[in-house]
Amino acid sequence: MNRTEPVTLTNMCMIKNGNKILVLDRNDPVWPGLTFPGGHVDKHESFHDSVVREIKEETGLTIKNPHLAGVKQFYDKNNERYLVFFYIATDFSGSLQESDEGKLSWLTKDELEHHKLAYNFDHDLPVYFDEKISEHMLDGKRDELF
Amino acid sequence: MNRTEPVTLTNMCMIKNGNKILVLDRNDPVWPGLTFPGGHVDKHESFHDSVVREIKEETGLTIKNPHLAGVKQFYDKNNERYLVFFYIATDFSGSLQESDEGKLSWLTKDELEHHKLAYNFDHDLPVYFDEKISEHMLDGKRDELF
Repeated sequence: MNRTEPVTLTNMCMIKNGNKILVLDRNDPVWPGLTFPGGHVDKHESFHDSVVREIKEETGLTIKNPHLAGVKQFYDKNNERYLVFFYIATDFSGSLQESDEGKLSWLTKDELEHHKLAYNFDHDLPVYFDEKISEHMLDGKRDELF
Repeated sequence: MNRTEPVTLTNMCMIKNGNKILVLDRNDPVWPGLTFPGGHVDKHESFHDSVVREIKEETGLTIKNPHLAGVKQFYDKNNERYLVFFYIATDFSGSLQESDEGKLSWLTKDELEHHKLAYNFDHDLPVYFDEKISEHMLDGKRDELF
């Protein structure tokens, strides 16, 4: 029995440099505002490779040994599952270079939390900051952390 | 642009009780042998709920606060992505009850590593035991840990 379902696979990465965190002010018309950088996973691409590639494209930085902090999921307008693999990277090289995706800034956690964030992004943050939380599930009115 | 791909979503859980780990001697004709218990994620089910449900079905135990340790992926015989979300649970209640899926035993890590395991399951173990490892990617001849 085939048990597949159509899924969109994406990643997002919190890059930390001491007490500063890299944020992207996303131009995306569907989901504008402050988030972390990230993007789509290509077919046959590992999640590790996808997040390294996307971070390079959106920030100019080469991250090393990103760690999976957890996963977010929601159902998109086609009622299909959309997954975001959340990574944390503390090891990186290169110089910051912005892309068409949006402007980049280094903020403290406190500054981040007091900024206007992209829709519902504040509900993603515990997956990055609380080691006991590894999933954010959004589905209709359901908005739960596990 | 729709960027979905067909994906099979599953889970697997290492349940720890002191220095003992619960293993399942899987009857599955496609993937027989020693692994941890787990199974499929249903549509609109969170990964957390799916692993709690599957562990209850296969072991009789009710796990609490399972933590996502990482993810395994491979391409199945239809060349479609197959994901396994790897959980660790140390908090559980109830009494062990076997299902048709296979026999259960409590082993130490050392006993586990010296057992004959299901195909390639030994390559999954670092995702459970090494906090720095959060992905196991299998694709054709590619067999990598990140």
